[in-house]
Amino acid sequence: MKSYSKITARYAETDMMGIIHHSVYPIWFEVARTEYIKNFGISYKELEEKGIMMPLIGLEVKFIIPIYYDDDVLVEAFNKKISPAKMIFGYNVLKSGDKSLLASGTTTHGFVDSKTFKPVNFKKNMPELFDSLKKSEEI
Amino acid sequence: MKSYSKITARYAETDMMGIIHHSVYPIWFEVARTEYIKNFGISYKELEEKGIMMPLIGLEVKFIIPIYYDDDVLVEAFNKKISPAKMIFGYNVLKSGDKSLLASGTTTHGFVDSKTFKPVNFKKNMPELFDSLKKSEEI
Amino acid sequence: MKSYSKITARYAETDMMGIIHHSVYPIWFEVARTEYIKNFGISYKELEEKGIMMPLIGLEVKFIIPIYYDDDVLVEAFNKKISPAKMIFGYNVLKSGDKSLLASGTTTHGFVDSKTFKPVNFKKNMPELFDSLKKSEEI
Amino acid sequence: MKSYSKITARYAETDMMGIIHHSVYPIWFEVARTEYIKNFGISYKELEEKGIMMPLIGLEVKFIIPIYYDDDVLVEAFNKKISPAKMIFGYNVLKSGDKSLLASGTTTHGFVDSKTFKPVNFKKNMPELFDSLKKSEEI
Repeated sequence: MKSYSKITARYAETDMMGIIHHSVYPIWFEVARTEYIKNFGISYKELEEKGIMMPLIGLEVKFIIPIYYDDDVLVEAFNKKISPAKMIFGYNVLKSGDKSLLASGTTTHGFVDSKTFKPVNFKKNMPELFDSLKKSEEI
Repeated sequence: MKSYSKITARYAETDMMGIIHHSVYPIWFEVARTEYIKNFGISYKELEEKGIMMPLIGLEVKFIIPIYYDDDVLVEAFNKKISPAKMIFGYNVLKSGDKSLLASGTTTHGFVDSKTFKPVNFKKNMPELFDSLKKSEEI
Repeated sequence: MKSYSKITARYAETDMMGIIHHSVYPIWFEVARTEYIKNFGISYKELEEKGIMMPLIGLEVKFIIPIYYDDDVLVEAFNKKISPAKMIFGYNVLKSGDKSLLASGTTTHGFVDSKTFKPVNFKKNMPELFDSLKKSEEI
Repeated sequence: MKSYSKITARYAETDMMGIIHHSVYPIWFEVARTEYIKNFGISYKELEEKGIMMPLIGLEVKFIIPIYYDDDVLVEAFNKKISPAKMIFGYNVLKSGDKSLLASGTTTHGFVDSKTFKPVNFKKNMPELFDSLKKSEEI
């Protein structure tokens, strides 16, 4: 399963090179991740309210073609791998229209307790959601 | 009393006009506010830990001369007015060197309980800090 | 004439108070401004390409009700006043659904030459667009 | 050769998890990169004015220990590898004081012409600077 989030590049996201600044891509990935998770009948907000947070432990981005102010892009998000301890999301940033690949990346997340920041076993805590996510891995 | 915070404009803070984006100025004001408060023997972080937060209820900025990447500026912060319910900070962004005025502004803050977000009487909650701040008003 | 831009609050836009950081509101205003201008048959991007930029000279925001991660809001944008030298936009941030007012603000812009940053007479440079905008002032 | 940039975490850089948002780390890397380059008798700003830009083609971050508001960190920057076509910077984010490792990362940059965005041969364009940088590679 893949989700697609439509994003229009904001003026504030540009830099003096005239292109979207590289630090913006992880924010777009996060927007896409938020939408991806909603497909599983829970929002990331509710997940945090239930006591589970997913802070990043890793981030990778490949920048292929620059993106400009007011460009429309589609951010494709998918589940590369989930284990009881962590989850890896994959992303492709596609040009709206011809769907050419502008950037790609991954984010790796640990599952932690929202009060103590200690690791939690996601499979034990939320077995049904874990199973649904496990089945949605893109191989 | 006034505080002076030295800030170097970051590349990520520029936009495609080639200047520092206007949304960055409130962030610099916040850096200056953090330093200003430290002069009173408490950090804003400790204030929040003691249960008091100071969310903005108002923001005003005048942009006078553009600021560029790698420019050094000094952000002057001062207390324009404090009451038991709210506080107004003033700011001047000065060019490092000749101290010419690049921008100015104010932020108005309510005092609220950090758990309930309800207004609190700052004078009653922290009478000594309130008094020190009251005496530091710039008229 | 008013424009309405739908925005969903991003996780990256929150701060440790758990609410959308105040520096984000000017960015949302800018998103709304971009959409507003498109109603006049030109994009802000094209305006810059034609040699005219509209840097901010003033910004005001009133924060009324906090906004949280994943909240849907509508940003209403309108033209408060235009002259050959400058333009004032007004904004209301409304809660999606009951349309309650969460924040409001204005941005004041000068018209400048995109190469020299010197003031330009917008009425003389783009008389037709100026007239359309003049007629769209909200009184 | 390594450079060390002192950074204090800003309130605006936190998120609702209460920690510095992951998208901020690339911005800190950039601050460190700016300082690193100055050791070679030229600023990145001057480099762009001479017609060479260094947009990112890759970014990697490992997040080891969370960073909080008002924490002081040192960002260590170094040159991992330079060729006529690209350059890889390495970074370590260290806790001020005990120098424990909080995060690490790399950024990979292409050398491009600032007008055309086409690749340039950095060694041919700026042979002396290329040589100095080549000698500063950390192996």
